[in-house]
Amino acid sequence: MLKSSTENKTPLSVVKIGGNIVDNPDALESFLDDFHQLKGQKILVHGGGVMASKMAEQLGIETKMIHGRRVTDEDTLRLVTMVYAGWINKRIVAALQKRGCNAIGLSGADGNTIPSVRRSPEPIDFGYVGDPDPAKTNATFIARLVDGGAVPIFCAITHDKKGSLLNTNADTIANTLATACSRLYQTTLYYCFEKEGVLRDLNDPNSLIPSINLKEYEEYKQSGIIAGGMLPKLDNAFRAIEGGVSEVVVLHAKNLLNGKGTILR
Amino acid sequence: MLKSSTENKTPLSVVKIGGNIVDNPDALESFLDDFHQLKGQKILVHGGGVMASKMAEQLGIETKMIHGRRVTDEDTLRLVTMVYAGWINKRIVAALQKRGCNAIGLSGADGNTIPSVRRSPEPIDFGYVGDPDPAKTNATFIARLVDGGAVPIFCAITHDKKGSLLNTNADTIANTLATACSRLYQTTLYYCFEKEGVLRDLNDPNSLIPSINLKEYEEYKQSGIIAGGMLPKLDNAFRAIEGGVSEVVVLHAKNLLNGKGTILR
Repeated sequence: MLKSSTENKTPLSVVKIGGNIVDNPDALESFLDDFHQLKGQKILVHGGGVMASKMAEQLGIETKMIHGRRVTDEDTLRLVTMVYAGWINKRIVAALQKRGCNAIGLSGADGNTIPSVRRSPEPIDFGYVGDPDPAKTNATFIARLVDGGAVPIFCAITHDKKGSLLNTNADTIANTLATACSRLYQTTLYYCFEKEGVLRDLNDPNSLIPSINLKEYEEYKQSGIIAGGMLPKLDNAFRAIEGGVSEVVVLHAKNLLNGKGTILR
Repeated sequence: MLKSSTENKTPLSVVKIGGNIVDNPDALESFLDDFHQLKGQKILVHGGGVMASKMAEQLGIETKMIHGRRVTDEDTLRLVTMVYAGWINKRIVAALQKRGCNAIGLSGADGNTIPSVRRSPEPIDFGYVGDPDPAKTNATFIARLVDGGAVPIFCAITHDKKGSLLNTNADTIANTLATACSRLYQTTLYYCFEKEGVLRDLNDPNSLIPSINLKEYEEYKQSGIIAGGMLPKLDNAFRAIEGGVSEVVVLHAKNLLNGKGTILR
């Protein structure tokens, strides 16, 4: 019997970490130890953390919010590019290189890896914010790096191919990369966050739901067991699975190597 | 008759621009038009400009100088990494991508392309400053990018492979890259600066010396025709030639395409 095309592909892990790791030097070092030990081909996507907001304050750049979401004006774009693509990205690269991991830091502009479309100013103008398209993501360029032994480290900055950089959601970057790379690899997407995974009871870390398929997800939503901020995360995750990603694991960063968390298939 | 090994190699241009271009949006756009049109395989190295100093002032980071040279303390390292590897580098990458040039922005930490040695604290501690070694520069990794159609854009930040980023002189980065790549390519190094080239009379732009070899350089030095700030630049250039670089051209950025300047061989 012929193997399915998925089984013939090389495995690839796309790991996303958020600000809670980036902002905590000890947690970051510990995570990078684990990430370095993660077997096989891999990509890291990192969020921004609080540094950009702190610096905005120091520099007197006003943070504009609409409906609880930050507006990226020109000053803010410059600042987040400096902090995300500059300091945070290169600090992670240097820390991984120290461990013998051949990290290469990238924004979505580099190698045109993740072209984005600037979000429409109607109904709300969020400024220099971009939404990437997995179909236009340059998986071939990324694969050449990965197959050559490099480990791409992505910050959440993309570009519009018209000369503008764009601020982009890090979860979306991870999703986009995993989906695009699933054309070439058997891809697992790891969403690291501050909880153990998807919990039946947010206040009980022992109430982890070990796995969820799309049908079960619909049931959990209807019964109200999964609600609130978890919904966009899981909607994204199931979109990635529909797009070709083999598995999405929602877990605490400390569990990256044992894989304990909620597996979405 | 067999061709010499140099003649068998693919040509590669390594172009260095300084702060005078980086700080001037019109000059930068015009330079990037020319750089995009420059035929063949190529690498760009950019200096820092005045933005880091301006931001240091805004953030209240004191600029420490010893013998007219900036000391890179931890705050300054973070700042120059943000400005050079973040904003300036990614802005250039996005501007070249707009032109259809497949730019990829790199620091010396990325792909371990340029490992450096932190400068000895004796006799003067300049802080997080690194001196790269052409012999340890990862020309193979760079060649894989270049041969795949990418155009590396280097900022002047390197790393020590022990987890620290290091502030590094941009002329030295260009020199190091050109020397290292000359093992694989027939390399020409273009030093763009604010003059037409090496002048007999600094106040007369028509006094350009079109070419200088090492013997002539020694004579110009002895007669005092070449002196002052030009000496370290040309010493570096002739070191690159000794190291295998085919030609070094010292010229004004506006003359990149016609190559008018001083050719050192």
